[in-house]
Amino acid sequence: MGRKGILIVISGPSGAGKGTVNRALLSLLSDLSYSISATTRLPRNGETNGVNYYFVTGEKFQEMIAADKLLEWAKVYDNYYGTPRQAVEKMLEEGRDVVLEIDIQGALQVKEKYPDAVLIFIAPPSPAELERRLRRRGADAPQEIEKRLRSAAAEMSLAGRYDYVVVNDEVERAVSKICSIITAEKCRSQYYLNKSGGLNESTNS
Amino acid sequence: MGRKGILIVISGPSGAGKGTVNRALLSLLSDLSYSISATTRLPRNGETNGVNYYFVTGEKFQEMIAADKLLEWAKVYDNYYGTPRQAVEKMLEEGRDVVLEIDIQGALQVKEKYPDAVLIFIAPPSPAELERRLRRRGADAPQEIEKRLRSAAAEMSLAGRYDYVVVNDEVERAVSKICSIITAEKCRSQYYLNKSGGLNESTNS
Repeated sequence: MGRKGILIVISGPSGAGKGTVNRALLSLLSDLSYSISATTRLPRNGETNGVNYYFVTGEKFQEMIAADKLLEWAKVYDNYYGTPRQAVEKMLEEGRDVVLEIDIQGALQVKEKYPDAVLIFIAPPSPAELERRLRRRGADAPQEIEKRLRSAAAEMSLAGRYDYVVVNDEVERAVSKICSIITAEKCRSQYYLNKSGGLNESTNS
Repeated sequence: MGRKGILIVISGPSGAGKGTVNRALLSLLSDLSYSISATTRLPRNGETNGVNYYFVTGEKFQEMIAADKLLEWAKVYDNYYGTPRQAVEKMLEEGRDVVLEIDIQGALQVKEKYPDAVLIFIAPPSPAELERRLRRRGADAPQEIEKRLRSAAAEMSLAGRYDYVVVNDEVERAVSKICSIITAEKCRSQYYLNKSGGLNESTNS
């Protein structure tokens, strides 16, 4: 029991902007730590191994699953994504707050293993805006976009299993709400009581 | 189920500064509504009936209890305090967020009746600071202060039954944390799903 660091999970349908929101969050809150995911998909333009992802082969990924080296993993559109377990657990143990930006399947796995994890669902303002963003990104083929739009509708129905829903109508507003959520989570009575032990040494900062 | 407005309960040991924090909160967030408590205690200097409290007789207070007109009530240091039920329920129904500044006994009663209520425990930074504040206030006789200090220690042990603990080391910091808590509560997935019904009309502001 008892959180040392807080595990924050940023997730949502693809195209909702979780990547953009997460990057803005990390640049605003410099003491947040993050985890680099492993994936079998190919790097997009400008992506670097060990920075954006650990790009690994399918074989290597299966080895990591078998050795229980992943906190969560998911197959998304023919590619695998996963969070290396050890690095995250070490940071939390050291009292650092960690952000994971992961897929919805993965987010729900994390919540099962770590009920104290704070799940934040990044929602698009509307289906039309979601489609516009996916097309504008230009990273995917038209049929890939159709596939993503179909699954987004299904994914929206899972928002209720998250702790929070933040509508990404504007990145700054969304990030500000996430900052409030983190502040609030640090004021949770369980967190406070674990940290302070009570009246004698009571500061939640 | 489902919150229309949010019911926020500000509570904590006397001398922790919940009154000061609450006033600062209300002046900062002008769209917050508040409830005026009924009490059998005598007005302090500068307190006005219908503004700070409804000052009522013991007989009248017992009538209100009997007629179930109080959302919560408590006997604190020989005086009774209670929250008139109807006004609060009406404001919540209208979608307004309501703050109650009440005693710990009352706060726990509210949580039992309204599990969706957000309980915030205002904690003093230390026992020494609590004593200093009580003496400085000068509103109470020395033996009254001793009594309050004894119960404060017991009351601290109830912090775990609250949703949040906010240490009142500095009023502005405490108020800012409460604002974050309110923002976060409005992002709670249950609240969001009730308000929006899903993807088609999704704004949590």
